[in-house]
Amino acid sequence: MSNFTSKIDLEARRRAGEVLRKSFMKILDDILRDKEPEMLIPKRTLSNTIYDPVQKLLLLGDEKLSRKFFDMNESRKFMQTILMGSIIYQALVNNEYPTIRDLYYRGKHTIRYRSYDGKVHEENTWDEQKESDSVLRDIEVFTNLLREDMLILSKEKGKVVGNMRIRSGDDVIDLSKMGHGAYAIEPTPDLIEFIDVDAEYVLVIEKDAVFQQLHRAGFWKKYKSILVTSAGQPDRATRRFVRRLNEELKLPVYIITDSDPYGWYIYSVFKIGSITLSYESERLATPQARFLGVSMSDIFGDPKRGKKPYLTESERRNYTIRAKEMDLKRAKEIKSYKWFQTPEWKREIELFEEKKVKLEIEALTSKGLVFLMDTYIPTKIQTKDWID
Amino acid sequence: MSNFTSKIDLEARRRAGEVLRKSFMKILDDILRDKEPEMLIPKRTLSNTIYDPVQKLLLLGDEKLSRKFFDMNESRKFMQTILMGSIIYQALVNNEYPTIRDLYYRGKHTIRYRSYDGKVHEENTWDEQKESDSVLRDIEVFTNLLREDMLILSKEKGKVVGNMRIRSGDDVIDLSKMGHGAYAIEPTPDLIEFIDVDAEYVLVIEKDAVFQQLHRAGFWKKYKSILVTSAGQPDRATRRFVRRLNEELKLPVYIITDSDPYGWYIYSVFKIGSITLSYESERLATPQARFLGVSMSDIFGDPKRGKKPYLTESERRNYTIRAKEMDLKRAKEIKSYKWFQTPEWKREIELFEEKKVKLEIEALTSKGLVFLMDTYIPTKIQTKDWID
Repeated sequence: MSNFTSKIDLEARRRAGEVLRKSFMKILDDILRDKEPEMLIPKRTLSNTIYDPVQKLLLLGDEKLSRKFFDMNESRKFMQTILMGSIIYQALVNNEYPTIRDLYYRGKHTIRYRSYDGKVHEENTWDEQKESDSVLRDIEVFTNLLREDMLILSKEKGKVVGNMRIRSGDDVIDLSKMGHGAYAIEPTPDLIEFIDVDAEYVLVIEKDAVFQQLHRAGFWKKYKSILVTSAGQPDRATRRFVRRLNEELKLPVYIITDSDPYGWYIYSVFKIGSITLSYESERLATPQARFLGVSMSDIFGDPKRGKKPYLTESERRNYTIRAKEMDLKRAKEIKSYKWFQTPEWKREIELFEEKKVKLEIEALTSKGLVFLMDTYIPTKIQTKDWID
Repeated sequence: MSNFTSKIDLEARRRAGEVLRKSFMKILDDILRDKEPEMLIPKRTLSNTIYDPVQKLLLLGDEKLSRKFFDMNESRKFMQTILMGSIIYQALVNNEYPTIRDLYYRGKHTIRYRSYDGKVHEENTWDEQKESDSVLRDIEVFTNLLREDMLILSKEKGKVVGNMRIRSGDDVIDLSKMGHGAYAIEPTPDLIEFIDVDAEYVLVIEKDAVFQQLHRAGFWKKYKSILVTSAGQPDRATRRFVRRLNEELKLPVYIITDSDPYGWYIYSVFKIGSITLSYESERLATPQARFLGVSMSDIFGDPKRGKKPYLTESERRNYTIRAKEMDLKRAKEIKSYKWFQTPEWKREIELFEEKKVKLEIEALTSKGLVFLMDTYIPTKIQTKDWID
């Protein structure tokens, strides 16, 4: 099989295998030296998840848990961690590309054992994927390798087009020569090499269909930009790819979502990271990302700032959608997040709570694609009318 | 804007605009000649949806409905159809690329009118997208133009890699040079030109993550094939793209889904079309597509045919998932469809009903990607162990 895989992957495997082996070697050493085997793993609890206002990132704190073999509360987890480590290592050695679902299946089996009283017991390695996923996360923080570094693949929705050339696997890909289609981002974006780029910013569009429209109309050619879509809630690869565009190529990142709490959350996952996976924020989040719109003040204007709305009275009537109970609840939650507690976001969320309406991006293309492309987006960027 | 769009699109617009104009011109003629304006539209009802066992396709029958302006039951629909026609025409002329959501927004407004008694009434052009979508479908069957022909875009999930070059827009794209990523299929696959291809068959994988694995391991290079994923339920573009590969390039199409009623349905949408959109089957379905697996007899074997199972007893225990009430209900429904009433499908569905378990494709990669890639798929194809 290896004849058909890229050299890049072979090298990545070697690197990850080495780190993984070293991390677990300590446990073997303990055993050989008659010491109680123990793993010290950074805690992935909410209390050890800290919002760093300087880096503007959700990060893991310093707390660690001790996972011991001879601890009744931890021994099951201990064995699961060892099992997962060995499955991943085997996959690396055998040129496999498992998914997290695979890892669950690969490890899933029943252990039969006899206790002191002679009774036969049965215990499953794990019952649900939730369990194996959790152990995988432990290995990620334990080894400081993200799953992507270990060639664990996943489904991907992210797409990109723009005036840029990249190297992926053994190929050079010109992202300006994708025709009407697009380049589907690989699950391991750290293995991408940026060759050259001629763009002034990155525009991330939540909705695939709007991405298609802007691409087709030549937006990225006219406004020298890289166009990315997350096709809804962004996956890890899309987030990492956007982060790298920002960090390594110094390109500003603007995000456009629907004007509702769900859209704000998508922006926040790009910018800050997700709460349950804070350990990955350091590499996946883009703290410099800006929320370009659609904002509540785009819909209603903001007299205090002398900002006129982008919609007329009748467009507002036809295009806005009444917020549901769920939306208001979500808004309240988001308002409580530390990183949403800036004056700009407070104003945005309060305007939403007052007006109780939301708006889809498509409502803007309904005013004409030309409006979205040649008025709305360029004006918002030129007048720096974004929320940070 | 048009400087940045492809010549292919400009030509497609011209063609569609002409057909659309001609189709509606008859109504204008009627009005000018003092005749009652009328549209004759093929009926999209279940009773007018016929399974053609020769073509192996779901097709619309000959029944037509008469939509008249001076008919109280049809006048609202009549006006909606005219409204939708004019919105699409405007979009074509103005180089727009609306989505079906856009079309809904564009047409949505309130009409105020005064009745004989002097009272002012209000009526919405349409209230929900369901209404505007239905009118769009009427226009598709009325004009014999699919929405894609009218440059109406949509979100797309389909991806492809393989030894093949295509022209899309103004670019030539080499689908064998996508690195670890893939080519995201455009929303208008009829505008793609196949330049050259060096492959023996098309393998369609339901799951994006398994597609990623096979792609990464070089499956399509080793087994000279075109690899496609629908990423779940296939969208129109993926279906049309696969159909064209089969019809124009004469490539056999093999489909791999999870082994459950949901997977069978995905296969059936590729092969026969969907029941609610039978008018599009003629162009979107691939009647020659074959269900390669995962079949129930792959899991349990079939002693009558001398077929051994691909899973051992213990793998079956660890990998299969108990079917839910919903799955069994779905199986019963599928069993009643005419196109599933072959001896092979009956055997498949009955085995499912007997064993009451399902299996995901990932369970096969858990036996090793090498197993899926070098044993399962090639053996199934070589021994013609598929269901038609």
